Amino acid sequence: MASTSSPAFSHALLSRPSLPSTVAPTNQSSLSSLSLPSFPRIKLSPLPSSAAHRRRIPSPARTSVRASATVETLGSTAETALVEKSINTIRFLAIDAVEKANSGHPGLPMGCAPMGHILYDEVMRYNPKNPYWFNRDRFVLSAGHGCMLQYALLHLAGYDSVREEDMKEFRQWESRTPGHPENFETPGVEVTTGPLGQGIANAVGLALAEKHLAARFNKPDSEIVDHYTYVILGDGCQMEGIANEACSLAGHWGLGKLIALYDDNHISIDGDTEIAFTESVDTRFEGLGWHVIWVKNGNTGYDEIRAAIKEAKAVKDKPTLIKVTTTIGYGSPNKANSYSVHGSALGAKEVDATRQNLGWPYEPFHVPEDVKKHWSRHIPDGASLEAEWNAKFAEYENKYREEAAELKSIIKGELPAGWEKALPTYTPESAADATRNLSQQCLNALAKVLPGLLGGSADLASSNMTLLKMFGDFQKNTPEERNVRFGVREHGMGAICNGIALHSTGLIPYCATFFVFTDYMRAAMRISALSEAGVIYVMTHDSIGLGEDGPTHQPIEHLASFRAMPNILMFRPADGNETAGAYKVAVLNRKRPSVLALSRQKLPQLPGTSIDGVAKGGYTISDNSSGNKPDVILVGTGSELEIAAKAADELRKEGKKVRVVSFVSWELFDEQSEEYKESVLPAAVTARVSIEAGSTFGWDKIVGSRGKAIGIDRFGASAPAGKIYKEFGITAEAVIAAAKELSS
Amino acid sequence: MASTSSPAFSHALLSRPSLPSTVAPTNQSSLSSLSLPSFPRIKLSPLPSSAAHRRRIPSPARTSVRASATVETLGSTAETALVEKSINTIRFLAIDAVEKANSGHPGLPMGCAPMGHILYDEVMRYNPKNPYWFNRDRFVLSAGHGCMLQYALLHLAGYDSVREEDMKEFRQWESRTPGHPENFETPGVEVTTGPLGQGIANAVGLALAEKHLAARFNKPDSEIVDHYTYVILGDGCQMEGIANEACSLAGHWGLGKLIALYDDNHISIDGDTEIAFTESVDTRFEGLGWHVIWVKNGNTGYDEIRAAIKEAKAVKDKPTLIKVTTTIGYGSPNKANSYSVHGSALGAKEVDATRQNLGWPYEPFHVPEDVKKHWSRHIPDGASLEAEWNAKFAEYENKYREEAAELKSIIKGELPAGWEKALPTYTPESAADATRNLSQQCLNALAKVLPGLLGGSADLASSNMTLLKMFGDFQKNTPEERNVRFGVREHGMGAICNGIALHSTGLIPYCATFFVFTDYMRAAMRISALSEAGVIYVMTHDSIGLGEDGPTHQPIEHLASFRAMPNILMFRPADGNETAGAYKVAVLNRKRPSVLALSRQKLPQLPGTSIDGVAKGGYTISDNSSGNKPDVILVGTGSELEIAAKAADELRKEGKKVRVVSFVSWELFDEQSEEYKESVLPAAVTARVSIEAGSTFGWDKIVGSRGKAIGIDRFGASAPAGKIYKEFGITAEAVIAAAKELSS
Repeated sequence: MASTSSPAFSHALLSRPSLPSTVAPTNQSSLSSLSLPSFPRIKLSPLPSSAAHRRRIPSPARTSVRASATVETLGSTAETALVEKSINTIRFLAIDAVEKANSGHPGLPMGCAPMGHILYDEVMRYNPKNPYWFNRDRFVLSAGHGCMLQYALLHLAGYDSVREEDMKEFRQWESRTPGHPENFETPGVEVTTGPLGQGIANAVGLALAEKHLAARFNKPDSEIVDHYTYVILGDGCQMEGIANEACSLAGHWGLGKLIALYDDNHISIDGDTEIAFTESVDTRFEGLGWHVIWVKNGNTGYDEIRAAIKEAKAVKDKPTLIKVTTTIGYGSPNKANSYSVHGSALGAKEVDATRQNLGWPYEPFHVPEDVKKHWSRHIPDGASLEAEWNAKFAEYENKYREEAAELKSIIKGELPAGWEKALPTYTPESAADATRNLSQQCLNALAKVLPGLLGGSADLASSNMTLLKMFGDFQKNTPEERNVRFGVREHGMGAICNGIALHSTGLIPYCATFFVFTDYMRAAMRISALSEAGVIYVMTHDSIGLGEDGPTHQPIEHLASFRAMPNILMFRPADGNETAGAYKVAVLNRKRPSVLALSRQKLPQLPGTSIDGVAKGGYTISDNSSGNKPDVILVGTGSELEIAAKAADELRKEGKKVRVVSFVSWELFDEQSEEYKESVLPAAVTARVSIEAGSTFGWDKIVGSRGKAIGIDRFGASAPAGKIYKEFGITAEAVIAAAKELSS
Repeated sequence: MASTSSPAFSHALLSRPSLPSTVAPTNQSSLSSLSLPSFPRIKLSPLPSSAAHRRRIPSPARTSVRASATVETLGSTAETALVEKSINTIRFLAIDAVEKANSGHPGLPMGCAPMGHILYDEVMRYNPKNPYWFNRDRFVLSAGHGCMLQYALLHLAGYDSVREEDMKEFRQWESRTPGHPENFETPGVEVTTGPLGQGIANAVGLALAEKHLAARFNKPDSEIVDHYTYVILGDGCQMEGIANEACSLAGHWGLGKLIALYDDNHISIDGDTEIAFTESVDTRFEGLGWHVIWVKNGNTGYDEIRAAIKEAKAVKDKPTLIKVTTTIGYGSPNKANSYSVHGSALGAKEVDATRQNLGWPYEPFHVPEDVKKHWSRHIPDGASLEAEWNAKFAEYENKYREEAAELKSIIKGELPAGWEKALPTYTPESAADATRNLSQQCLNALAKVLPGLLGGSADLASSNMTLLKMFGDFQKNTPEERNVRFGVREHGMGAICNGIALHSTGLIPYCATFFVFTDYMRAAMRISALSEAGVIYVMTHDSIGLGEDGPTHQPIEHLASFRAMPNILMFRPADGNETAGAYKVAVLNRKRPSVLALSRQKLPQLPGTSIDGVAKGGYTISDNSSGNKPDVILVGTGSELEIAAKAADELRKEGKKVRVVSFVSWELFDEQSEEYKESVLPAAVTARVSIEAGSTFGWDKIVGSRGKAIGIDRFGASAPAGKIYKEFGITAEAVIAAAKELSS
């Protein structure tokens, strides 16, 4: 790995050079004495009378925060007036942007503006001019539809990604303010949310990454890794199973620096949550091992919110859920506390009424000068925070050179020079083995050279073969270890890995289950692909070859379903060299996730396979023809490449000129030059037979209209694997028969 | 609907005529005086010393059941000895079958044999000779890997589906005892389990169906619908998010007749659950609104188990979770309480040791005569139960002719004659509309004629347009209604619908969310397809046409991913007639689920579309060629059929002979005759252009190697829909250009 001694290297990660990235000089003193004029008190929109009684009563066990008498008097001070003005600025930026786009979700930003303000203005540590500063607090808006909340906050805080003109382009083509928060569009957004429940699970991953890196790198004299992860999630997130999975793990792991603010507004799209969501979330989270706090007045109880966050930070051994009871669409006289404010523009008339109600005389998108001035300190403050940390890191580097280099490589995502030499290679004489076992050899080889590799399985470590033998388990009290035990929580696992991957570019999370159970985690995998999180999905038991467990466990359509998904690499390696080749590409692709479909059953090491071949996606492993004119081309993947090779042997004995092609990754083949493609699949050769123990869907593209795809277009069966292969016709005999028919 | 007056019509549902289905005469009296010899007490394998201390302590709020002193004395009676012998029979049938197959999961059956025995021998009401008797109690083994437990119980109870020879063929080709419970293979198995968490969610659906039908059809003088739903689930199920989703709903709905026994054995595949699962399940379920009971000794505390079930039945307004602490692999001296007994055969040596330990002198697969005799009463008892119910039904039918006819149609799954005439039809002059709205017209039309239609949305009813206007909400206190509010719980929703569909063949559940969120529920949808549950999936917002919500909400690969899945019908209707046509096929396919991809945006009613055309999957909507020789064929689906039609108009103006084909369902087209296919897509015409706002993956099959597929092979974008269509080139201009290039 190339070493750098520049302490400011985290700036190197600014991936959008078009954004100005100036660091303003620190000037805290001029702000600490800030004195502001008082602002007229706004009229509060009362809760409908029915709202009060249906709030659930918390159990006595959990903490309930109310503003104390002392605190309440703050309400009349200038500071609180400015806070309210800032909060209303957030509300109206959201209202105005949604109104201009005539599309979006004003309700959440209006209700969550107080907690949003407190987080970004008072609590969180970040540097607006470097959204990628390593030690920043992370914020995740799990209720991603309310993204105007986050855009408004990023704008006020001074991020270059959300300027006034960006908010005016909310939800428009190529804007930086898309309809849901997208990390790949908007610096300052950590992860991609919108599909409910994903964000809170990402946040668990972010907090896991922090806890892991802190345990590995912090020293008694230097807490070089030290940040919080904050989340705002809503009722929708709470209903999703993925949230329960991830939060159960967060409790198990004791992620004390994870603080989730639950926007308890009692409204979802279909109306009052009473129609479908009457569980006690508080009690459930206590069961999950969280510290639970209830802020009863999330609308104006600023000190309640502050006190709750303070309390949450003081609880070191448990994550905290702060249930913040709010009014959705707070401030809108006719639409607050109803589903109508959730997902559409208020409309000009109601916008006016809300301006009236909240005493807001300004033009759309206006940020009052005093609010602007108040927030302006975050640019110098953020620069100071980063500068302080950089100084601290320089000191750390002097004392702990090796650790500093390793941490730096994780932060920068630079792979150590020659890392790929650690990958095992095989010859046809090497022992036959299941690709899941060969995968374990690769993982263990890589773990020695890749400091950021960590991961695990959804309770199938001994079947997926994913344990890193040199490490112990990542657990509450051993967070420096790298084997993560996800339990039977595939969906949460995938989303947690997204969070890990997006925490630091050098973290390379992998996760594992049976290939068929990608169905449980597909939503998270899609977000890996969309949000450019280079997670490695180790998916074993990849076909009917798993045998007796039967059709519930046998993937059929899964290869096709991932080949159709954008920005994801689907690998089906045939043996040791191809497994190593798949890992090589997977590790190199930090912005594209990889799925490795691996066999349960033993497979021979085939002549002709190679690490380099895999990088091309499809390549010839054997050929007895010349002039690029074989009589027939046999195409196989994974465990069926062996069958294609056997069939070729037989056909060659009968004098046929046969090429065997491994099609280990369709996506990579697609990216090759036309010349290369023609060298593997010459257009003139239409006699092509493919064999794969999965759906034939999509194979027409490879074998052409005149070729034949041998596969399985029905569900599997419970029986020994060999029997199923035979009964389903996934055999060399079938390939030979088809080849003869096509090439005669 | 054809009416039948035969009270024994539930026999008509016996779908496996090869099974003998004799009904033995009732002979209870000869059994009630049964007196049995006492059986030598078995040696109990002690719990390892570490096991006791790590059991979690229940909160004082929940009930804990221990055998009372009186009850404990029962332990020495002849009856208890026989019970233990029966329990050991179950254990050894499981051990022997797994051993013979050298594959399977002995641990759960050994640990759960006591609760299994009590359920099937003492608690449940069923008729072994008619597994489809309508009013039977339902049993779901959510921890499906332990299927030998259920097979052993079905065998002892006298079901013809699991004879001794079937158990000897455990996990073999075409046996009735596959590796996980499959309703379509084994009468007596209600649903298909194995993928964890699905079973408990199916059970919620079964209990919902019971509560709904009971509310609709029971009369003060006749509880004609009245059964319980029992579940055994394990730690794995508990960790899955789907289970939390479904159980949250079960609590919300107050499904008092749902009783779940949680096999709390503290072991999962990766070892002790301490490594990943330390939440308090009890507390969580209290939060979910369940009644929670803890049976501390599930191994030998038979009276504890009995008392807990009794208590659970007495709680009418809440579902009950009975946490039954057991030892996995109970009886195995060296493997009990360890993961090694979970998923592989014990091995000959350990089988011997277990036989020794439990005092079991018998040959493999032997059922001792006294055990056999004891269980034999279930055949006559079951016949009596059904006969009694049939008599009750006859009486009900006399009094409530209309209700009886409706209930019968739900039980038998006979659709009323002429039901399809209720479907709306449209002309090109009918107003343009979104197919999601047209779908709502169909649903509301069908609700009037299909007594078994019920369903709802995952909190998107007003976006998916799924409300049945003539009905209210299915809720705790209004269970007779048919709009189900699932909350934001897609995965649970799908699995609950599987349970509803498999409860009675005439129940036709539908469920809805945005098409992209099928990713959240794909595992349940696959089980719909595999288990032949004819659920209708109403999936709106089916492309970039949804606009501003952006790539997280825009499906791309989803059409392809379902086209690749076996036994599911993927529809993408283009307008009103096609939407009605899709519903017609969907309703008729009671053993094959349907997915309807529907637009958010308005679409015109196209000339040439028809309900009958949809039934063929692909059909010509317009053509100005003759002799089956168009210059070019344009193929479209859904919202892009309009674009294909527009392009055809332009091309025809320029003198081209153009055919436009709607490819609304690939699966149905595949099923047509070769002659028909040739009439739509003549082999000689290779100039073919397809257009679909989704992945082009798979389209080579339709357009051929020389055709062109216009689609989207990247993620979507956040902008107004029209803008995205244009930027992505999903336009008539693109079709025209491609058509000209190919046909010139």
